Amino acid sequence: MEGKILLGHGSGGKLSHELINQLFIKHFNNSILNSQTDSAILYIDKKNIAFTTDSFVVDPIFFPDGDIGKLSVCGTVNDLAVSGADPLFISVSFIIEEGFSLNDLEIIVKSMDREARKAGIKMVAGDTKVVDKSKCDKLFINTTGLGCLDEKNKSISTGTNVKIGDKIIINGSIGDHGMAILSARNEFNVKSDIKSDCACLNHLIKKTLQVSPNIKFMRDPTRGGVATVLCELVEQKNFGIEIDESAILVQEKVRGLCEILGFDPMYVANEGKVIMIVAQEDAEQIVDTLKKDKLGKNSVVIGEIVDDHHGKSWINTGIGGRRIIDMLAGEQLPRIC
Amino acid sequence: MEGKILLGHGSGGKLSHELINQLFIKHFNNSILNSQTDSAILYIDKKNIAFTTDSFVVDPIFFPDGDIGKLSVCGTVNDLAVSGADPLFISVSFIIEEGFSLNDLEIIVKSMDREARKAGIKMVAGDTKVVDKSKCDKLFINTTGLGCLDEKNKSISTGTNVKIGDKIIINGSIGDHGMAILSARNEFNVKSDIKSDCACLNHLIKKTLQVSPNIKFMRDPTRGGVATVLCELVEQKNFGIEIDESAILVQEKVRGLCEILGFDPMYVANEGKVIMIVAQEDAEQIVDTLKKDKLGKNSVVIGEIVDDHHGKSWINTGIGGRRIIDMLAGEQLPRIC
Repeated sequence: MEGKILLGHGSGGKLSHELINQLFIKHFNNSILNSQTDSAILYIDKKNIAFTTDSFVVDPIFFPDGDIGKLSVCGTVNDLAVSGADPLFISVSFIIEEGFSLNDLEIIVKSMDREARKAGIKMVAGDTKVVDKSKCDKLFINTTGLGCLDEKNKSISTGTNVKIGDKIIINGSIGDHGMAILSARNEFNVKSDIKSDCACLNHLIKKTLQVSPNIKFMRDPTRGGVATVLCELVEQKNFGIEIDESAILVQEKVRGLCEILGFDPMYVANEGKVIMIVAQEDAEQIVDTLKKDKLGKNSVVIGEIVDDHHGKSWINTGIGGRRIIDMLAGEQLPRIC
Repeated sequence: MEGKILLGHGSGGKLSHELINQLFIKHFNNSILNSQTDSAILYIDKKNIAFTTDSFVVDPIFFPDGDIGKLSVCGTVNDLAVSGADPLFISVSFIIEEGFSLNDLEIIVKSMDREARKAGIKMVAGDTKVVDKSKCDKLFINTTGLGCLDEKNKSISTGTNVKIGDKIIINGSIGDHGMAILSARNEFNVKSDIKSDCACLNHLIKKTLQVSPNIKFMRDPTRGGVATVLCELVEQKNFGIEIDESAILVQEKVRGLCEILGFDPMYVANEGKVIMIVAQEDAEQIVDTLKKDKLGKNSVVIGEIVDDHHGKSWINTGIGGRRIIDMLAGEQLPRIC
């Protein structure tokens, strides 16, 4: 391969997909990896195990309503949960810059511990590396998670049962995490009190799985936002996606900041949201169930699977127009997770 | 906690142990983590699963007979193997500096793939993060591994069955990896052709487990070297360790470089070595089995478990003297893995 790594290779968008397909999948090529689900689904001794890894390089490491530690637990718990799995065990590996404050490290560790206990996942393995001053930016954290997956939930991560007429649900407003990180950076001289939505969703998701056997697909719209999840899902499928923009909740202060800086909230990262695709007949009951939980109180149907423009997602804008939702070409907001 | 992170916190020695015990174990406190084995041993649906994580920050990323990719697979495969587990699945997470060569990344990915296939482990989950120029040093890799563990091998990682009279075996010369990395750095203006011993040991270990049910303990002497493994094992135990220095193989060029630079090979990292503690009556047969494999051809008994100086390791030097083996206080060689 020729060329150099660009920030866009870590964006979750087009360049990331190219890197994954033309390098990682090409060489590591095996059916489990190739399925590109949020968690790898392993079959060990007649049991399905979900397995997922993520490194966190968020900048800044402390932000409104979260820090890199909380984020690293929530991110991995959510990747397991959206695969339909019960999160059980998590490992943590720190890469720390020489000179980093032990006090800050303790705050982060306590935050991880609190979040892991709330989610009911056990921190069971770890590693620490220290690199010389200026060879990393404060602190990077990898978490890798393991969960048990019921046979009946196996198709949730691949979305193979999604069909025309299914409804698309999200559990609240979009773009909060990305804009909270951006304003915490103070780069653009903008002040805001936007808080990250960073939260573990496994208990919320479990409740919905208990009320409906018709949850066809779930994914957490992190890097690349809601738009990227929809693009990935619809790609090469025999159906299209139709999104109703007016149904999508964007907090006023998030919308304002996005407008000032030229971001589309549809592409901004979330860390406490799940997109669910569910059978039409179960949609209302699922939204009601989600709404009973603090983390789902603003849940809403935002669109549906349609027998039109196969392989593409369209969004109907509030003013009667419509536009296609495409994969992000480069990097919009580096280091938001 | 007061103070700052020092390079020694990542050394595997005394400072690392303090950080683990006073911060990580204190907060994440649970019986699986507290056992501090090479792999966490999980019990999922009546099956034992070994689970281990490691981040690799080696500098330089290419070195004689290896690179950061090969190292990241071998390190995790070996942590599973020395726990008595059969390595099955591995995840990889890259943190890449903006501007890194795609060609170098491909070389590293191919090297990981080759090593994973040789070891028979499947690469099933991944993640890529890119950070801006100068915010990390080229490339860091996290690998996390999963393996199946037979009930009969469950005590190998804790060493609970070790008893007086047991023999201590190592599968060849020590200090190769650390000195290969050091000379590849060209910092000290020393030239050498020392090669890293970096290798996956799971097949070798499996063969020995098949010939003897009396392997009591295994560990790979990486950061902190053979000395640190012995210190960790003997700590607070009702036995002592006696090592015969003349039995320990150190390549002439490794010994030479260690002498010039003031390193003790006992503390220098290995990446293709395993220390085994085995029943006295099985020692000869195990050494014979190890010797039949290329990765074990220089295997040797280097010491034994004794009913003397409980909790301490002593080494009998070639010239008739003896000295205590203590845990490394600071960092001897940063970023060797």
